[in-house]
Amino acid sequence: MGTIYGLGLGPGDPDLMSVRAHRLLTNAKHVAFFRKKGRKGQARQIVEGLLPENAIEFPMEYPVTTEISVHDPRYNELLSAFYAEVTQHLIELANAGEDVVVLCEGDPFFYGSFMHLYARLRDVVPVDVVPAITGMSGAWTATETPITWGDDVLTVLMGTLEQDKLTDYIRRTDALVIMKIGSNYDKVVTALKDGGKFDDAWLVQFATMGSKQTVTKLSEMTDHGTPYFSIVIVHGQGRRP
Amino acid sequence: MGTIYGLGLGPGDPDLMSVRAHRLLTNAKHVAFFRKKGRKGQARQIVEGLLPENAIEFPMEYPVTTEISVHDPRYNELLSAFYAEVTQHLIELANAGEDVVVLCEGDPFFYGSFMHLYARLRDVVPVDVVPAITGMSGAWTATETPITWGDDVLTVLMGTLEQDKLTDYIRRTDALVIMKIGSNYDKVVTALKDGGKFDDAWLVQFATMGSKQTVTKLSEMTDHGTPYFSIVIVHGQGRRP
Ligand SMILES: C[S@@+](CC[C@H](N)C(=O)[O-])C[C@H]1O[C@@H](n2cnc3c(N)ncnc32)[C@H](O)[C@@H]1O
Ligand SMILES: C[S@@+](CC[C@H](N)C(=O)[O-])C[C@H]1O[C@@H](n2cnc3c(N)ncnc32)[C@H](O)[C@@H]1O
Repeated sequence: MGTIYGLGLGPGDPDLMSVRAHRLLTNAKHVAFFRKKGRKGQARQIVEGLLPENAIEFPMEYPVTTEISVHDPRYNELLSAFYAEVTQHLIELANAGEDVVVLCEGDPFFYGSFMHLYARLRDVVPVDVVPAITGMSGAWTATETPITWGDDVLTVLMGTLEQDKLTDYIRRTDALVIMKIGSNYDKVVTALKDGGKFDDAWLVQFATMGSKQTVTKLSEMTDHGTPYFSIVIVHGQGRRP
Repeated sequence: MGTIYGLGLGPGDPDLMSVRAHRLLTNAKHVAFFRKKGRKGQARQIVEGLLPENAIEFPMEYPVTTEISVHDPRYNELLSAFYAEVTQHLIELANAGEDVVVLCEGDPFFYGSFMHLYARLRDVVPVDVVPAITGMSGAWTATETPITWGDDVLTVLMGTLEQDKLTDYIRRTDALVIMKIGSNYDKVVTALKDGGKFDDAWLVQFATMGSKQTVTKLSEMTDHGTPYFSIVIVHGQGRRP
């Protein structure tokens, strides 16, 4: 039987993928990756130029991204059917003795889409998960300032949370990471103000992605159309000798 | 002028260091690393066999680790003097045009010792920080279960925090990582019980470090002498289609 690899690619710079990921990629026969319809796919873009010429590509196109709310029951139905369908294809490949590399942005087990395949594959075929540098590590490194010192508490929040919940967690933490900003930008800004951390917040867009990377104090942002690949960072100020 | 590299090595498996870290290491002329007196040093051990034969090594030996409490003012004095001294040596090398690779366990900016050098070097000589896979990514991958789904809140705590604070944060989070367990083991266990997460907690020791790695339900631990390299993991149970 073949193995399905959940291959973490890291934050974007191909030089930041692991030695193991690099080796698996440059020897890959089957390469699967998620993408929005009509897009190339961010993960696919990271590995541009690294795949063997004859690699067989399997783009997995989301049937829905932001058109339907995640709270609408149809969202879950559509995605479930989609995950079941692509899983079926991966299982057939593994049963035919083929290894498949599934490209994952950042670390596969950290809020990653691969987990939805993993949950459906793990009891059926061999699956191997390769951890990677997270987008947030790329982002705090880009700010050129350590994220946590000494006993600092670090909280990681999704911008999709309700505003009150965001505010509450923001107030009670030392260091802070907020992901999935996009259309949640205004809510996140209000929560940061109410939680007393707006003035210390940075916005990092496209961390480690070459000239696309930007690092800005949130209070100095002028363009509020934040892309999907953006992260808010508030550094901890803990004990240091 | 030479550059001081804060080189993140990842969680332990040399195959999990980044392509960039691997290249810097295999071409290094000067290699610095922290260690306890009389020990080889964990970071140094990870790169065994990778350094060029003629690399010049600079072990930076902590004057104190757990002999003095971090709350004793002498702790800070001793460590400050130590950091100042090793920083001086690194600055001299950089001024002489030499690059130096400083080995860091995990990601340098995530609770790393390198940050204490970084704070003293950054305005004086060129410093370049290479992010890496964190120990916690290695640990949750070892549990073969995703750490966070959907809107899950992830909280990262140090076992050195006071018990009440630990309990409070443990109760209010979805997913949880606790580092620096060691002598804080009993306190961490009590806090997990009081916070209602003891039965769901895993202890991962020496994550990704080959045959030394262990993954155990905390409730099934028999030996309570946990090593420095251990992490408590509680997985989030968030939304999933
Ligand atoms: C579905 S999560 C995937 C996280 C990924 N598995 C990781 O380990 O970073 C997507 C979110 O990750 C964040 N992200 C990941 N990589 C990023 C990067 N290079 N720059 C900025 N944000 C990034 C963004 O906040 C984005 O909304
Ligand atoms: C001073 S912190 C350094 C963290 C490091 N910079 C990182 O990114 O993981 C030391 C703590 O990291 C955790 N740790 C780091 N690597 C680990 C591993 N491979 N296995 C278990 N614990 C690890 C342990 O909890 C340890 O007490």
